[in-house]
Amino acid sequence: MLVVCSSCRDTAGSDARPRAGELLGNQVRETAQGTGVAVRQAECLGNCKRRLSAALLRDGCWSYVFGDLTEDDAPDLVAGALLFATSTDGLLPWRGRPDCLKRGLVARIPPLAILEDPS
Amino acid sequence: MLVVCSSCRDTAGSDARPRAGELLGNQVRETAQGTGVAVRQAECLGNCKRRLSAALLRDGCWSYVFGDLTEDDAPDLVAGALLFATSTDGLLPWRGRPDCLKRGLVARIPPLAILEDPS
Repeated sequence: MLVVCSSCRDTAGSDARPRAGELLGNQVRETAQGTGVAVRQAECLGNCKRRLSAALLRDGCWSYVFGDLTEDDAPDLVAGALLFATSTDGLLPWRGRPDCLKRGLVARIPPLAILEDPS
Repeated sequence: MLVVCSSCRDTAGSDARPRAGELLGNQVRETAQGTGVAVRQAECLGNCKRRLSAALLRDGCWSYVFGDLTEDDAPDLVAGALLFATSTDGLLPWRGRPDCLKRGLVARIPPLAILEDPS
């Protein structure tokens, strides 16, 4: 599932609505149609220092947050989500990952399930 | 649950082992003893641009990633985890949150559960 921050501002930092993040979210929704990729918009992913942000989530897998996105990155976000769906180890593959999801990586969080038992 | 990145380097960027992140993780473990806060160490939370990192997770709640931490922040991390445990809305309260968990916020991710149904 793709979660796009809807409160992110454009490069000018404008407060105008709709925000750049909302526009990106709309484009991601359109791009994802028919692909099986679910898209949601969320108010603030807390990554305000690195502009347009989105998160990639999959049940039982690592979660990823990306920043430094642009309004042109909708196709790459959807491609990343489709790539994630092919993962067998819970990680987003590096090979084949769109560049904006390499450069823009802000953080990844392990799933609670693999953390429940101390190693 | 607190997840501390064990591969984070110190401010000098040294590759020496143990890494600064591992030392912080050890201190967090010690500090958390007897508090009920679970502590895990993970290899790389992907936040390498903002030094020492940790994540705060709770089942069904938002997940938080923090950066710019120092080796002195173990007590604040445990205090943040205890504060999170009191949350009734799935969010880490702002009031009472240690300063390093305000300044150092890198990202927050909503729980899948609240995203399953489009609003």
